[in-house]
Amino acid sequence: MSPAISERGKAFPPSPIRKLVPYADRARAAGKRVLHLNIGQPDIPTPPAFFDAIRRYEETVLAYGPSTGMKEYVLAVQEYYRQWGLEFEPQEIIPTFGGSEAIIMAMLIVAETGDEIIVPEPFYTNYRCFALMAGVQLVPVPTEVSQCCRLPSYEELRKFVTPRTRAIMINTPNNPTGRVLELDELEAVRRLALEHDLFVLSDEVYREFVFDGKRHRSPADFADLRSRVIMLDSISKVFSSCGARVGCIASKNAEVMNSALRLAQGRLCAPTLEQIAAAAAYRARREYLPPVVEEYRRRRDEVFAGLAEMREVTCPMPSGAFYAMLDLPVDDAEKFIVWMLTSFDVNGETVMLAPGDGFYATPGKGVHEARIAYVLEPPKLRRAMSILRQGLAAYPG
Amino acid sequence: MSPAISERGKAFPPSPIRKLVPYADRARAAGKRVLHLNIGQPDIPTPPAFFDAIRRYEETVLAYGPSTGMKEYVLAVQEYYRQWGLEFEPQEIIPTFGGSEAIIMAMLIVAETGDEIIVPEPFYTNYRCFALMAGVQLVPVPTEVSQCCRLPSYEELRKFVTPRTRAIMINTPNNPTGRVLELDELEAVRRLALEHDLFVLSDEVYREFVFDGKRHRSPADFADLRSRVIMLDSISKVFSSCGARVGCIASKNAEVMNSALRLAQGRLCAPTLEQIAAAAAYRARREYLPPVVEEYRRRRDEVFAGLAEMREVTCPMPSGAFYAMLDLPVDDAEKFIVWMLTSFDVNGETVMLAPGDGFYATPGKGVHEARIAYVLEPPKLRRAMSILRQGLAAYPG
Repeated sequence: MSPAISERGKAFPPSPIRKLVPYADRARAAGKRVLHLNIGQPDIPTPPAFFDAIRRYEETVLAYGPSTGMKEYVLAVQEYYRQWGLEFEPQEIIPTFGGSEAIIMAMLIVAETGDEIIVPEPFYTNYRCFALMAGVQLVPVPTEVSQCCRLPSYEELRKFVTPRTRAIMINTPNNPTGRVLELDELEAVRRLALEHDLFVLSDEVYREFVFDGKRHRSPADFADLRSRVIMLDSISKVFSSCGARVGCIASKNAEVMNSALRLAQGRLCAPTLEQIAAAAAYRARREYLPPVVEEYRRRRDEVFAGLAEMREVTCPMPSGAFYAMLDLPVDDAEKFIVWMLTSFDVNGETVMLAPGDGFYATPGKGVHEARIAYVLEPPKLRRAMSILRQGLAAYPG
Repeated sequence: MSPAISERGKAFPPSPIRKLVPYADRARAAGKRVLHLNIGQPDIPTPPAFFDAIRRYEETVLAYGPSTGMKEYVLAVQEYYRQWGLEFEPQEIIPTFGGSEAIIMAMLIVAETGDEIIVPEPFYTNYRCFALMAGVQLVPVPTEVSQCCRLPSYEELRKFVTPRTRAIMINTPNNPTGRVLELDELEAVRRLALEHDLFVLSDEVYREFVFDGKRHRSPADFADLRSRVIMLDSISKVFSSCGARVGCIASKNAEVMNSALRLAQGRLCAPTLEQIAAAAAYRARREYLPPVVEEYRRRRDEVFAGLAEMREVTCPMPSGAFYAMLDLPVDDAEKFIVWMLTSFDVNGETVMLAPGDGFYATPGKGVHEARIAYVLEPPKLRRAMSILRQGLAAYPG
């Protein structure tokens, strides 16, 4: 006999990005090549300075770092934020296990069990898992793929506030939509936070990836949001180092950081080697990042050139991150993705996307949508878009 | 104006191991040398094979690993457990961010918000933080330092079971007491789990460090507990690699592992490089571990030779891990520890311990106790014990 696990243990959602991986494994086992546009795992090289720093590590003991972070890492992040016009003291930055832990910490710190956090949807799918861990209710604010997922006005946003609302969570540039928030959208968020006494959880892990002459803006840019903004960051995407598991939580709110430090002490420290390596990557960013950003721009253009040939696919071109949500002319995007893996190929090659419904909290939404991550080289993306076009034409659903 | 953080955000406990660090920093700044016996950070070298594996990493992209773990890591752990007579399939082992995340996952999986987990006290202090994160109530079962923290009988244990009890959590060899559970104590745990339908969370991160011809026993050794035991493990102590942040959760219960996988997918993966390095460390364990275990035995003997000269310090000699709880003849152990850092030294050198009350959930308990971690070389330990003896004699409280 087995004891029963908890209801929340049963409720943790499978990752829409990863749950169809077994189909991809089987496709590969059957000899197909799979172009993975389902997961935000770039093929861009990690900065060599990152690996060099790790290889140069000479201690004989891989010891705990301070819970407050390795000094060189914290100073590198401080200097990096300063370049963005944001002033943080070292004690206002604490390293975390990737951006993921920063988000979990922030939810625990701002909300009690049962409290609510407003989040525009579609949103980064794993917020659902983190919210369930923290016992927090995500209250989705609908946006439309056809309008490039523009945030609604303050008047619209405020309708989602209840006595249990503690924060609004934003993510710009956005995963999965690629949207870069405009000043007026951020103004609406600001007004919501100020008038309803909310925290602003700001996931900015794609900060560097903005195209078309636009610029990334953070809610931390507003002086009157200083004590409300909690920055959630990660080196995974900026430095193509997803396997490092280093991110940070940063805030000018002393009470927030004091709580974050006690949470950080509970699990002792973030990875020692990767903090040292991340510091080196931050220092190398001025040479490293410009060609990377240009490469993502090129890839986005490649994807959208391909999409332009698919009349029935709705997707306005976004200006940031390396994702887009596609509104597909299919009965069910997940079924279509599985069909592409199991029953379709062009010269032994097929494409994998991430089903869209996992990026929504509202049941039934996103069923016709899929997220595409343009994380492969342009020639592969060109092939992928051609395969996708032919797949859509051949799909029976 | 700042918005208020959550009550739980305020309640996260400061680490008793780390909260007095500012006093140590000031002592050092004032020119004192501090012998750190407060934190379980060994000075034992990490296996060279660990660093070699990291230096040999040749990919240009530090990519996400699978949420299920890097294959070589999982197979190494599987092979390691097999040596201990425990059979786990690869899908029954998932790597985590140190043992810490494994514990948080297990709590979320077995218990709803408000449910209870029984844990003998004193216990590893950070369980308090994890329980608060998971919204779980720790129900402490008192044990006595004077009796070497022996677990009570089944009849005693069952008194702590309520309708909300979901699990009993044990830790053998134990942090902070050094106790290695005997067969009859594990039999009591087994009976409790079977008769009250509980999970057994088994923190075995000190498994290798057992002395005096005793042997480590796991509740997983009992065939009838197969579906109830959740193993919580880490490479931090066994391979003196605390900064790696690699541990695992392992269970024969498919529902538990299915839930753990979805939680793991939520935060994507454990650190890639350190999993590869951990696999190398596990493979090197037969040469690496015997002298390490012998060294800890030598240190324990050194500490207890020193304690034998302090008549008023009560502490029966434990047979495992690298800790002991000392019952000190002082008014307040925390005050004494601070006094040792601020107002006492022998030839410019002093000793830092961890105050005992942080290892208890029952208010008021452990006030006269302190945890000692014997993580320094025998000559340093000898000096430390001499300084401690003189400090106790000179302490005004």
